[in-house]
Amino acid sequence: MAWRYALLLAPAASDDARTDFSGTFTPIDPSAPALSVGELSTQRGDGIFESIGVVDGHAQEVSAHLERLAHSARLCDLPVPNLGQWEQAVAAAASECPAGECVIKLILSRGVEHGPTPTAWVTVAEAADNTRARRDGIRVVLLDRGYDSGAPERAPWLLLGAKTLSYATNMAAIREAHRRDADDAVFVTSDGVLLEGPTSSLVLRQGDRFVTPAPGAGILHGTTQLSLFAHLAERGFETDYATLGVDALREADAAWLVSSVRLAAGVTSVDGARLPYDAGFTAELNAYLLSPRD
Amino acid sequence: MAWRYALLLAPAASDDARTDFSGTFTPIDPSAPALSVGELSTQRGDGIFESIGVVDGHAQEVSAHLERLAHSARLCDLPVPNLGQWEQAVAAAASECPAGECVIKLILSRGVEHGPTPTAWVTVAEAADNTRARRDGIRVVLLDRGYDSGAPERAPWLLLGAKTLSYATNMAAIREAHRRDADDAVFVTSDGVLLEGPTSSLVLRQGDRFVTPAPGAGILHGTTQLSLFAHLAERGFETDYATLGVDALREADAAWLVSSVRLAAGVTSVDGARLPYDAGFTAELNAYLLSPRD
Repeated sequence: MAWRYALLLAPAASDDARTDFSGTFTPIDPSAPALSVGELSTQRGDGIFESIGVVDGHAQEVSAHLERLAHSARLCDLPVPNLGQWEQAVAAAASECPAGECVIKLILSRGVEHGPTPTAWVTVAEAADNTRARRDGIRVVLLDRGYDSGAPERAPWLLLGAKTLSYATNMAAIREAHRRDADDAVFVTSDGVLLEGPTSSLVLRQGDRFVTPAPGAGILHGTTQLSLFAHLAERGFETDYATLGVDALREADAAWLVSSVRLAAGVTSVDGARLPYDAGFTAELNAYLLSPRD
Repeated sequence: MAWRYALLLAPAASDDARTDFSGTFTPIDPSAPALSVGELSTQRGDGIFESIGVVDGHAQEVSAHLERLAHSARLCDLPVPNLGQWEQAVAAAASECPAGECVIKLILSRGVEHGPTPTAWVTVAEAADNTRARRDGIRVVLLDRGYDSGAPERAPWLLLGAKTLSYATNMAAIREAHRRDADDAVFVTSDGVLLEGPTSSLVLRQGDRFVTPAPGAGILHGTTQLSLFAHLAERGFETDYATLGVDALREADAAWLVSSVRLAAGVTSVDGARLPYDAGFTAELNAYLLSPRD
């Protein structure tokens, strides 16, 4: 991954009604030291993030990502982000993106320990080449997420619906998938309910119906899944949220892990058992996801 | 918290048999930018840490902390740390500590994304004043950790025995305790087994027996708890590891949350119900914990 650009945001309260925030962020060298060792993002994974796909300079679904950033901030008791400021920072970052695919990351950290304000920054990097996953699909394994399906409601301090910086488990799950000769994982509750991938949402096809695990189950509400469902509904398909057992994946007519940068990756096998894979339909989905979306 | 000192470690493989690593770490300004935005510690909470108490310049239980650092590295598929190098870095950090109490933090991050090596650093800060918690005790609430007691063995990718940088949930649990007018939390599995505090180990007194949750249950093996048990055994008490239900805490003759910096904080109430509290005995435990320990 080649880092292209980064900027630091100055604190701006959510009720700051300025229309021009361009003076409140500063470009920084993405490969130079920028954060102090006292940062709670680095000490405690204490903060939240978003990853926005950029295609030929167009940042995709910015509003949906900013809304989710605000949602995560609420769940984590972080100050409400000023979305006007973030929007302008994203526009500045997008203007630094070369042709092709990039990823803009937004990070809102609780700040330096015992410091007065959060720290916030934005990075731009060229996206990895995801051609193969989009074209040939991915093999997944089911991995136990440890908690049962009642935990998110029972224990909000687990922050299960927030996109926090505490992703060590998500990264370990991907390593475990690789150890099992697979490309990615799908998390399942201890009582057998399908959740999401470590960095993606799960979408199943059942005939002409497309279904995804309900966000209430302590998973992130995927921005790419939302956008894809709008597209599928426009094409006349039925779309739905549901509580899905593992058999729903094993018996699906097709399945995808969808995310902002890799986009739609068709699932070709689950724990080694093959799943129907429709290369043509997947290509159509990715063509849509690569088109400019707001 | 006043930052006093920090240093960055240069990569040194675990089989590097040098006796002098003093050239392999560099002092840095703890309040100046030192880490790049590409750091996986900050992007993903992807790394591990240790917090070592320092009393009048003496770093406590350094070997136990370094062993646990190596244990966490194994669980997280990080390169084996070179403990000789870390030991010398800790000694350099300790020599910067003023009289009184400090905390040395060791951080081993997976490094910059797609970079060749982990990043490692050490910080020194003056410890918060913990007099009140040590003298007057703390009120705790029981909080569901979400997973059942079988999860750690079933799902090692949850990294439940590793001291990772992904501590957002631990921090959220402490905020939840404050919301409930308590000082700290004790995590419990979904099937009612006592675990640990978000940043401490739980020790119960039952007559002349002292007992702590078994580390196999997916909790950290507390260095302070280990040291305290050695001390208690020397004083003729029985010490034990066990699977403990929540009633064991509610019916204990006394209970403490013990950790490297706050040391022994006696539990005065659990979810608002009072627990017997022995100020004199707690003072003895803290006198021991404040004495030089190796």
